[in-house]
Amino acid sequence: MSNNLLKGKKGIIFGALDEKSIAWKVAERAKEEGAKFTLTNTLPSIRFGKIGELAKDCDTIVIPANATVVEDLENLVEKSMDFLGGKVDFILHSIGMSLNVRKKRVYNDLDYNYLGETLDISAISFHKLLQVANKMDAINEWGSVIALSYIAAQRTLFGYNDMADAKALLESIARSFGYIYGRDKKIRVNTISQSPTPTTAGSGIKDLVGLMDFTGRMSPLGNATAVECADYCLMMFSDFTRKVTMQNLFHDGGFSAMGMSSSAMHQYEKGIVSKDC
Amino acid sequence: MSNNLLKGKKGIIFGALDEKSIAWKVAERAKEEGAKFTLTNTLPSIRFGKIGELAKDCDTIVIPANATVVEDLENLVEKSMDFLGGKVDFILHSIGMSLNVRKKRVYNDLDYNYLGETLDISAISFHKLLQVANKMDAINEWGSVIALSYIAAQRTLFGYNDMADAKALLESIARSFGYIYGRDKKIRVNTISQSPTPTTAGSGIKDLVGLMDFTGRMSPLGNATAVECADYCLMMFSDFTRKVTMQNLFHDGGFSAMGMSSSAMHQYEKGIVSKDC
Amino acid sequence: MSNNLLKGKKGIIFGALDEKSIAWKVAERAKEEGAKFTLTNTLPSIRFGKIGELAKDCDTIVIPANATVVEDLENLVEKSMDFLGGKVDFILHSIGMSLNVRKKRVYNDLDYNYLGETLDISAISFHKLLQVANKMDAINEWGSVIALSYIAAQRTLFGYNDMADAKALLESIARSFGYIYGRDKKIRVNTISQSPTPTTAGSGIKDLVGLMDFTGRMSPLGNATAVECADYCLMMFSDFTRKVTMQNLFHDGGFSAMGMSSSAMHQYEKGIVSKDC
Amino acid sequence: MSNNLLKGKKGIIFGALDEKSIAWKVAERAKEEGAKFTLTNTLPSIRFGKIGELAKDCDTIVIPANATVVEDLENLVEKSMDFLGGKVDFILHSIGMSLNVRKKRVYNDLDYNYLGETLDISAISFHKLLQVANKMDAINEWGSVIALSYIAAQRTLFGYNDMADAKALLESIARSFGYIYGRDKKIRVNTISQSPTPTTAGSGIKDLVGLMDFTGRMSPLGNATAVECADYCLMMFSDFTRKVTMQNLFHDGGFSAMGMSSSAMHQYEKGIVSKDC
Repeated sequence: MSNNLLKGKKGIIFGALDEKSIAWKVAERAKEEGAKFTLTNTLPSIRFGKIGELAKDCDTIVIPANATVVEDLENLVEKSMDFLGGKVDFILHSIGMSLNVRKKRVYNDLDYNYLGETLDISAISFHKLLQVANKMDAINEWGSVIALSYIAAQRTLFGYNDMADAKALLESIARSFGYIYGRDKKIRVNTISQSPTPTTAGSGIKDLVGLMDFTGRMSPLGNATAVECADYCLMMFSDFTRKVTMQNLFHDGGFSAMGMSSSAMHQYEKGIVSKDC
Repeated sequence: MSNNLLKGKKGIIFGALDEKSIAWKVAERAKEEGAKFTLTNTLPSIRFGKIGELAKDCDTIVIPANATVVEDLENLVEKSMDFLGGKVDFILHSIGMSLNVRKKRVYNDLDYNYLGETLDISAISFHKLLQVANKMDAINEWGSVIALSYIAAQRTLFGYNDMADAKALLESIARSFGYIYGRDKKIRVNTISQSPTPTTAGSGIKDLVGLMDFTGRMSPLGNATAVECADYCLMMFSDFTRKVTMQNLFHDGGFSAMGMSSSAMHQYEKGIVSKDC
Repeated sequence: MSNNLLKGKKGIIFGALDEKSIAWKVAERAKEEGAKFTLTNTLPSIRFGKIGELAKDCDTIVIPANATVVEDLENLVEKSMDFLGGKVDFILHSIGMSLNVRKKRVYNDLDYNYLGETLDISAISFHKLLQVANKMDAINEWGSVIALSYIAAQRTLFGYNDMADAKALLESIARSFGYIYGRDKKIRVNTISQSPTPTTAGSGIKDLVGLMDFTGRMSPLGNATAVECADYCLMMFSDFTRKVTMQNLFHDGGFSAMGMSSSAMHQYEKGIVSKDC
Repeated sequence: MSNNLLKGKKGIIFGALDEKSIAWKVAERAKEEGAKFTLTNTLPSIRFGKIGELAKDCDTIVIPANATVVEDLENLVEKSMDFLGGKVDFILHSIGMSLNVRKKRVYNDLDYNYLGETLDISAISFHKLLQVANKMDAINEWGSVIALSYIAAQRTLFGYNDMADAKALLESIARSFGYIYGRDKKIRVNTISQSPTPTTAGSGIKDLVGLMDFTGRMSPLGNATAVECADYCLMMFSDFTRKVTMQNLFHDGGFSAMGMSSSAMHQYEKGIVSKDC
């Protein structure tokens, strides 16, 4: 069933790899709600994943782009406007990667070239995208841009490493550019801070299974799933949220507002007791 | 045009006085989006305002209730379920009043009976409503409850007086009860922190015209209007936001994330220069 | 060893019950650092606890006061200025009590008379104290007022009940009055948000032992103790912090900035595994 | 007069340029409070400024270092431990620079090489410092590290440009490394978010005079000065604050907790009226 929430709207969706990706779910749901959009990812991700299938299902094309390369973004925006027949109304940025995490460099032994790449890929790419789109005047008035973030930007999680710093930078860029885009073109820029999600990329979070058990029990509504996140993104792309900008919006079943739940405490206390097993 | 966003949903809307009220706009828009609901306000407000007209336009009834009186809330919930034919899916709490403000008692000369009333009317009423609804099992699973708040809960504004403390208490109640309602019944509870709005009630904010000039210039998207706030409420009542709970959501054109805009600074500097006039 | 940090300063300390009280430690340390002060508590607490011993050790007097009664506060302030020979430089508010917690009324079955008392004792008493002190012009310029708070004001903890709302209200009052006191008299007002502490009063926190195990493992520096909190209070009373006001300052070993630590996760995962025991 | 607050403590102070620098004031006050420390800055800053005079007054040496170069930091730490006769107890990081600001590249026309430098100089240098110090085991248990920040990390200010993003990244690094340093060595890491300050470096803030008039009027205690900030740093270096870590501490006369003051509103309204001049 559709509410035609995005009827007539056009967009660009970054970061769909496979059917576990949040971006994948956003694409599927955006189509159901009446949107037209292009898809993009890096060439290796396009080859490694299944984005071609998604494009087919959504009657659209995949435009390869390395989001850290300004020229690639210019090409993406131009080709997207060609394909869609004009400016876009929404953009989803769902990109993050840390070589320090991949190469198991811990936070007090970072490789600074890797750190530079983490920040460039996971945060500065968002600035580049916004700057390119702004220079090319590629977003319609009252358009909406979303980047996906994580609570590690506010609270340290063991093992999330330099991705925490990247997410903090990403959220700052959303605020900084949100001011300019709002003032000049009535376009809103926000981040959505999503529950830990078992995507292929999310597997970089240390102890993801244990962490999701904890956050699920802490969150009164449980962890938010990828498809629920997609619905929230659509709402932020729709005309129902025109005056929300420069915000970081927690979509996490309540986790961010919890200090301790009965369910998590119960589980935790079994851990204390289990010392005596 | 409607997206049928609330098709089949039932609700209760507190606080519509006249067509300037945010609650009035929520009612109008909720009807357009397919919802059925009852309206409520205090008897004096019903007489003083025009809620009867709104009820007629929305094919519904007005059930008088003093939101500080548990019995009134019980009667409201019971009558609402009778009229609507079952449990509700959403509730809007838009209630606030300070006798200290009305009687011009400044914050360092509060009357403590008045303060008690401010907190009871503007914040504790929300707890009473939630507790009554919970005991009567009056809200469907995945229902959504919203209370309207203001940034004075986080940042002090000259003249907003004890209403700031009431809003802080209101937001805390939303979190505290949100945990229980989420855990036990998958119901979400949030507050929306709205731009200063020239409602009849909002006129209690000191220097409202000057303040709105300032917040409008500070906010890259300008102040959010009552009808825009209504749309945001609908989105939070819809199924697109099921995993958002215990949050305070700023709906303010970006004001909360601004330190200083070029537009507001420009206006402000004229004030500095004007000393030399 | 003393740094004479409060040499020549005068104050009033609320809330010392026995040697486990944070207020007790503040008094002991304040004396070591050169301060003169009076002590106060309610008559039942004076009888039940050992505040008389503390007064003897600190060469001072105990002035009974029910902090919810304006006349008692007036008497306290007057007697304190008499005893100390002039206006005070610092005040510590360390007061909190919930009959709902004591009588085991859960948060979705609150007694509203009890709630009124919780707010009056734990939060509004702070406003009354500040209003009385302001009207009596009882605090010197660049004086400092501290109230003790808890992270439940921001994040819900199972079982902390209506004390969470009281702490949110308390922190709001600190901001609201901090504006006026700063503007008019250069006096600062802050709250310190302390780790869970095994005081006699703190025992109201549900599952305190388990919770402290969790917060201790989450906090990279461990839970902050009562005497460490006392030292932080002294610093906030000293002249080294004159421009800090309207803040809520976390004194919690880092807990508030943590999402998940390796130590807490390790303990938690034992709880998961223990299902299979 | 001295409280011997840092008696016997050793440290490293980054960023003193001239007597307007906050780091300069920290050095002067740290000496008065009994500390021994080394000073450091880049070679150009050493030549351009007067740090040699400061070193003479403080009986210490200047060790040149480019804080973005790991080898320079290693040399600095080694030489400092040699000069001071052992590990240090405190470090002040007061470093920030944006070529985008200097070259008048606005935020929607950033040069990405400049952005890389802004982040490296103003934020990543802090990680490099902490990583080097950690690997060289250069900080004593219960040591304290402070970096200076600004509210632009949370709220966008016109013209502050990519320095806002750098400060957000800096604060995130403080949290991320604060976890590790706290857990492993009982060392605390915090940022102090200072009022706009008319230092030579601070002159990069657009419209600084107008902004300081605004923030001064908004802040109930007025803008915090450099020497007041120095005192707050000392407090955070002292043993009175051992359990405070991973925090961003506002030292701003109350600005961060203000929505609107009567004084700023008064000034602002003159700007509105002045249109009619």
